[in-house]
Amino acid sequence: MKIAVILSGCGMMDGSEVHESICTLLNLDKQGIEYQCFAPNLEQAKVANHFTHQADTNNPRNMLVEAARIARGNIKDLRDFNTIDFDAVIFPGGSGAVTNLIHSGSVLPDVSKIITDCFESRMPIGAICIAPMLIAQVLGSNGITITIGNDPKVASAIEQTGARHQECTAEDIVIDPENLIVTTPAYMLAKSIKEVDTGISKLVRAIAKLGR
Amino acid sequence: MKIAVILSGCGMMDGSEVHESICTLLNLDKQGIEYQCFAPNLEQAKVANHFTHQADTNNPRNMLVEAARIARGNIKDLRDFNTIDFDAVIFPGGSGAVTNLIHSGSVLPDVSKIITDCFESRMPIGAICIAPMLIAQVLGSNGITITIGNDPKVASAIEQTGARHQECTAEDIVIDPENLIVTTPAYMLAKSIKEVDTGISKLVRAIAKLGR
Repeated sequence: MKIAVILSGCGMMDGSEVHESICTLLNLDKQGIEYQCFAPNLEQAKVANHFTHQADTNNPRNMLVEAARIARGNIKDLRDFNTIDFDAVIFPGGSGAVTNLIHSGSVLPDVSKIITDCFESRMPIGAICIAPMLIAQVLGSNGITITIGNDPKVASAIEQTGARHQECTAEDIVIDPENLIVTTPAYMLAKSIKEVDTGISKLVRAIAKLGR
Repeated sequence: MKIAVILSGCGMMDGSEVHESICTLLNLDKQGIEYQCFAPNLEQAKVANHFTHQADTNNPRNMLVEAARIARGNIKDLRDFNTIDFDAVIFPGGSGAVTNLIHSGSVLPDVSKIITDCFESRMPIGAICIAPMLIAQVLGSNGITITIGNDPKVASAIEQTGARHQECTAEDIVIDPENLIVTTPAYMLAKSIKEVDTGISKLVRAIAKLGR
């Protein structure tokens, strides 16, 4: 079994959430599942100083180059992704999942194609934290069921795509068995990394089971 | 129990190794131990593009600002570290542990003071991957016993400080019970993140036991 992990930078405020990304890789490895990281070779929508919480407008960063820090250099350009090479895909959260992978309200064509291809070829999709919003943007009209925890505003935005939002706690997951989609709230609700790890370990187990 | 985690950036090639840092935070949290991250508020020795593996000489980065990505913004300037507030300290690896925390062959004064203060006040010190080299640089003359795995060159450099090097596998630890120092090779030897997590979980458990 081999699973693709789609990243969008390195950092909760402008890329992939680091704890969620690493917990995904750790749980894949612990469950004996091979993985390959990918990210778009494109400039991030923004760069945030994670210490001061201010925007850094002088030094643009590239999603693939920054995500390579999470992947220890073992990462590929998203353009080289082939659905046929994998049994499932997982999208960790972090604000990059919606600010980098969605541009001016539209999901990046490469990302949209991967999500559609996976769905149409009955390949399981996992999405963590805010990333389910990205999946809803592409597949909402198919009536998929997902969670981002219990934030009423985000849940309402998700339901406007046609998707169904189901409330869920940080350490649990929502499985849509018909559409092969598994989601977990992670830092939308989690108070610490242990809770994130628990939710993601369940997500990885469910994705692996659906993918067999 | 509260443990300080000393970071030096965000990325194996120019800062703190991301997997090792996150596995440290995760295992602390799983073992019910509170943590606080710190990093020097200083420019990194270098910046590396982790995708191309080339140096980026145009855009300097700050250790504290980058390490804040690992810490989700919950990080303090190393100058604000007080030994009295903590029961132990842990140094994750990544090349920043030796290229950022050591400058022109000398350990940064703030870092050196922390290591000496911890040692003198009988507070346990954990060091991961290449970080034991940093500890040896400060405490080697006290005849401490540490591991970086089995690399003969690094082991020899460690022994030149007066420290004793003990060979160790990726999933194990070396405990120096007299000097309260615990080390694990992590990515000096580990073939995957699961092995890193196993070694670090043992290190955290040993450090907590020594600190009680």
